Amino acid sequence: MISDEKQKYDSKGYLLYEGFYTNSLAQSIKEEARRVIHEEDDERKILEKSGVARSFFSPENNSDLFYRLNREKNMLRLAKELLGGEVYTHQTKINIKHALIGDVWEWHQDFIFWAKDDGMPAPNVLTAMVFLDDVTEFNGPLMIIPGSHQMGMLQETQKAASNHDKEWNEKYVNTKSYLSALSADLKYTLGQQEILGMAEKRGIVSAKGKAGSVLFFHGNLFHASPNNLSPWDRYVYLITYNRVDNQPDFPKNPRPAFLANRDFTPLEAMEMAYPVVSPEVCQPDIQYPISR
Amino acid sequence: MISDEKQKYDSKGYLLYEGFYTNSLAQSIKEEARRVIHEEDDERKILEKSGVARSFFSPENNSDLFYRLNREKNMLRLAKELLGGEVYTHQTKINIKHALIGDVWEWHQDFIFWAKDDGMPAPNVLTAMVFLDDVTEFNGPLMIIPGSHQMGMLQETQKAASNHDKEWNEKYVNTKSYLSALSADLKYTLGQQEILGMAEKRGIVSAKGKAGSVLFFHGNLFHASPNNLSPWDRYVYLITYNRVDNQPDFPKNPRPAFLANRDFTPLEAMEMAYPVVSPEVCQPDIQYPISR
Repeated sequence: MISDEKQKYDSKGYLLYEGFYTNSLAQSIKEEARRVIHEEDDERKILEKSGVARSFFSPENNSDLFYRLNREKNMLRLAKELLGGEVYTHQTKINIKHALIGDVWEWHQDFIFWAKDDGMPAPNVLTAMVFLDDVTEFNGPLMIIPGSHQMGMLQETQKAASNHDKEWNEKYVNTKSYLSALSADLKYTLGQQEILGMAEKRGIVSAKGKAGSVLFFHGNLFHASPNNLSPWDRYVYLITYNRVDNQPDFPKNPRPAFLANRDFTPLEAMEMAYPVVSPEVCQPDIQYPISR
Repeated sequence: MISDEKQKYDSKGYLLYEGFYTNSLAQSIKEEARRVIHEEDDERKILEKSGVARSFFSPENNSDLFYRLNREKNMLRLAKELLGGEVYTHQTKINIKHALIGDVWEWHQDFIFWAKDDGMPAPNVLTAMVFLDDVTEFNGPLMIIPGSHQMGMLQETQKAASNHDKEWNEKYVNTKSYLSALSADLKYTLGQQEILGMAEKRGIVSAKGKAGSVLFFHGNLFHASPNNLSPWDRYVYLITYNRVDNQPDFPKNPRPAFLANRDFTPLEAMEMAYPVVSPEVCQPDIQYPISR
């Protein structure tokens, strides 16, 4: 079964599992996310301009639930299968897209940030997005161009980046430079021609589903997300798994460890203290209508 | 048949007709829209910050096609039926939501702009939105809270406006004041409590459909729209029909006529020179899933 999945993943760059976890487990994770964000007040908490928390990195440092979730056996087995080897977490974060104000994210690839900022050698890296609320067309779902990961890391994004860097440096000259990867005003974005070329060929899909669903997506997949225009906050948890033999060659002034983990120990599966759904019962690949 | 429609419209505040016009008529209107925007270069053309046209008002002044479309017999019959009397156009505009950059519009009601800025006495006014491209979840569809028009024009929006006015005046002190109603940075928006209260009761729907579809919506209906994240521009044409006995009592320095029409002559039905679809074959009310 898994190798069918691997084939689909290689072709499309993502897999969406509806109901990978139970709704009640999703609810428990969300409550734990709120607790950690409320109780921990350090640089791992990234704020919106309005002062509310937008992201919280490495919650597993203060939470047994998140520590176990990173190692949950069904998710870990899939991450290893899709990446083809032992894995560790390069980055983990809780993301909150706030009611009415949660921002748009432009089209981008993730891997370029890890390559440029952390020195990660190859795109043998994926992110598992665990839905902690229902994700709908109204609250800023991930939009994806299937197969776009096959383009590799684009030169265009690097060009855009060099223009952006100047503006960015002027704007944030007195703040921590790593913040540039954490804002919706992204440092590396995709050019219109690349987006158009891929979308004409493969269309656009959006990753929607009930709380407890999980989306696995490739580090080079083109993705974007609109504002959350619903009046309800929308929580997700993102785990970036990297292959153990793909350790970054960190630059001289590396980003802090809570953003780019230095512990490369292969993860070992753990049981959750909460009921999980067996992946056998999952719908393996819900594709939504193409945009035109 | 029409009075069933009237009943639905009164209850929900909108009616969406899939395929009200043929795809080829929609295509002809879009080509005409492009021609007018290209050839006419005056204050009716509203630009994005980037310099591309976002809106063009009163295209019927330079186009037989738009002149006839405002009076197209099926649309006009519905507008009269839903408003309960003779009608004229208070405002018409072509709207372009540009690929990748087309902006988000916050939750708002339309009538408050016409009441405050033009002196329109009552919300006996509706807008027909003619889709000139397919409208999908990817290109900034109108999001709607069904039944929200029954709340009337909200005080909250007026409060928000008074705060906004100061900022606005500071920001645009040297520009034409009527521009405040034409920007995505709206002067009158709805408060979170009002949006939440209505959405909890009635959910949120989005108005999507093929090119040629038409959405009729009440002047007090809560609506918003996300960015256009697709790489394709999205055109719509908006006709605001007002009841003839609901003529504005214009203030001393009224907005220009291209924004707030002074010709209150009841419209008379005209034939289009293009094939139209009889409303009998329309799907009268496509409702999309509620957000949670």
